[in-house]
Amino acid sequence: MTERIFNFSAGPAVLPVEVLEEAKENLLSLGKTGIGILEHSHRGKAFLAVYNQMVDDCRKVANIPDDYDILFLQGGASSQFFMIPMNLLNADKTGDYVVTGMWAKKAVEQAKRFGNVHIAASSSDKNFSYIPKLTTWSDAPAYVHFTSNNTIFGTQFATEPTAPSGVPLICDASSDIFSRPIDIRKYGLIYAGAQKNLGPSGVTLVIIRKDLVKQGPLDIPEMLQYRTHAENESAYNTPPTFGLYLMGLVFKWMLNKGGLAEIENMNRAKSKVLYDYLDQSTLFRGTADFDSRSHMNVTFVTGNELIDSRFIEAAKAAGFDGLKGHRSVGGMRASIYNAFPAEGVSALVDFMRDFEAKNS
Amino acid sequence: MTERIFNFSAGPAVLPVEVLEEAKENLLSLGKTGIGILEHSHRGKAFLAVYNQMVDDCRKVANIPDDYDILFLQGGASSQFFMIPMNLLNADKTGDYVVTGMWAKKAVEQAKRFGNVHIAASSSDKNFSYIPKLTTWSDAPAYVHFTSNNTIFGTQFATEPTAPSGVPLICDASSDIFSRPIDIRKYGLIYAGAQKNLGPSGVTLVIIRKDLVKQGPLDIPEMLQYRTHAENESAYNTPPTFGLYLMGLVFKWMLNKGGLAEIENMNRAKSKVLYDYLDQSTLFRGTADFDSRSHMNVTFVTGNELIDSRFIEAAKAAGFDGLKGHRSVGGMRASIYNAFPAEGVSALVDFMRDFEAKNS
Repeated sequence: MTERIFNFSAGPAVLPVEVLEEAKENLLSLGKTGIGILEHSHRGKAFLAVYNQMVDDCRKVANIPDDYDILFLQGGASSQFFMIPMNLLNADKTGDYVVTGMWAKKAVEQAKRFGNVHIAASSSDKNFSYIPKLTTWSDAPAYVHFTSNNTIFGTQFATEPTAPSGVPLICDASSDIFSRPIDIRKYGLIYAGAQKNLGPSGVTLVIIRKDLVKQGPLDIPEMLQYRTHAENESAYNTPPTFGLYLMGLVFKWMLNKGGLAEIENMNRAKSKVLYDYLDQSTLFRGTADFDSRSHMNVTFVTGNELIDSRFIEAAKAAGFDGLKGHRSVGGMRASIYNAFPAEGVSALVDFMRDFEAKNS
Repeated sequence: MTERIFNFSAGPAVLPVEVLEEAKENLLSLGKTGIGILEHSHRGKAFLAVYNQMVDDCRKVANIPDDYDILFLQGGASSQFFMIPMNLLNADKTGDYVVTGMWAKKAVEQAKRFGNVHIAASSSDKNFSYIPKLTTWSDAPAYVHFTSNNTIFGTQFATEPTAPSGVPLICDASSDIFSRPIDIRKYGLIYAGAQKNLGPSGVTLVIIRKDLVKQGPLDIPEMLQYRTHAENESAYNTPPTFGLYLMGLVFKWMLNKGGLAEIENMNRAKSKVLYDYLDQSTLFRGTADFDSRSHMNVTFVTGNELIDSRFIEAAKAAGFDGLKGHRSVGGMRASIYNAFPAEGVSALVDFMRDFEAKNS
């Protein structure tokens, strides 16, 4: 078998080897059923057992209270950008948005189609290199929306902003969901595309407080109402069964690792190795403000585009894939989500140190 | 390895063993890349090669002309039920619908949200057991919509209805797409959830004439505009990469089998074995009208619910899974899509013959 290389892709991203191995075993026959996991009816006994276990494990991983529905939708976080205001905003209401990157901006654009938008804070003045500390909420917003981790810019909220009392806090947690303990009670709705920390692309996890499920209008297509999916346990129509199966394996892997507290320790240890090196390097430097740094996506540059691209090329040749930064930031980005192995980070730092020695 | 049983599931459905074997080999490393197929960035070279080959093969399979876009969306056919009228209907326009089953009815319900609906024909008078021959089109409809195969009721259009001249013909082909040659030029838009004939659940194939892509309004969310996906080669946001990969393997399998003409021969041969037996059986009988019979879903009953359920149970114990009919028809349903093996149909008929002998 081909040896696996270190995959720093921002998403779809590396998955735990144990998860892939188990999926592999079940591709032609799920357990002893004689039917592959991809081929089971979503209404059949075998798949429903997989589904129910997956939901139970998801609830356990993040300690999700019973008054929250756990939904599995399609269309990515990009579909939540419009489903949220479509269900929770209207011409008489205002949604407050904290704008910390490109995805937050996209969420704002969709919200404007359905109601009023107030920008409560933004870090666009410095190319989103920091998490703003001050927020100015509007009077009685329908909700507050923020992006907990900004994949492109390598920034992350250390802790969630405090929404005005009684106002639902909504979070796009696509790139740091379940990377650390989370107090679900502080949120009205949390959503995340699966392809970074949870599984393959093509499934979106939506954790939503039940009172918000009921708030949405009834005159929009059923598929775009949260209640449709809540009432039908995410099987109003055929769900992406393989994605749900894989997420179940990932949740099980998280529990086996010791849960979110232990996963946070692992993640902090990984990012520390990289940031510690960056902070003493004379060739490389991090692009995000110190106290806004992401533990998921570490962005850095040399300050010289030519050297950046030489580094990326050399790293790729040495088995470090996906290090090219997003075009809006340039430079490098190391995405080190939950499943990214610690030895890959150490190996990268060794490689960078070596590259630095040769290029100083 | 567990032996595979005969899986008559209506969808997600059986996939070609060759496809599953190849996917299995690429789960931990796509070729020699050292990165599993699930873990490759959708913008990376390796995945783009997979994607481009897949689209080329899709175009080849159905001989799709260049003035049609091939889109891969999420949300199933259920999302097309509203996306189509959202993009192509409004309060001043009428969509003509041929209603031949539950899914057609669902499409009608969504269309009513956006414009006028005219029922051009319906077989609801006889529980959708036939395909209506006569259609009464409205004056200048925006489009004509029909469902080529009705999974639940076991009926199928022998050939597409003739829409009024210049009116786009729209087809929900979820359960018989690429099961026989198709003249794409006759259509404005064809869509299908992948989970029956094309791949896993979680991807929807949309073949749409380019002039229709341009017709949609600009004031709806980008994700719901066909143009967004056409302009971005279905990667406006992260696509369900594994589903696209698997569809590519299925298209390749179709081409290796000799293409749609040969696949139609295989499908007709399979359904003939089952229908021939049903037509001479004194215990079982088909539920669909003779000239409306589906080559994909064969529905039948004994006329005695108790015997039906005894049969389903006995069949399951003998390794024939998924034969229970939909609750709205009762009885049995054998879904024998492209990938369902001919020997499974013969084995089922042998089993039925045996059951009949013991129960007469």
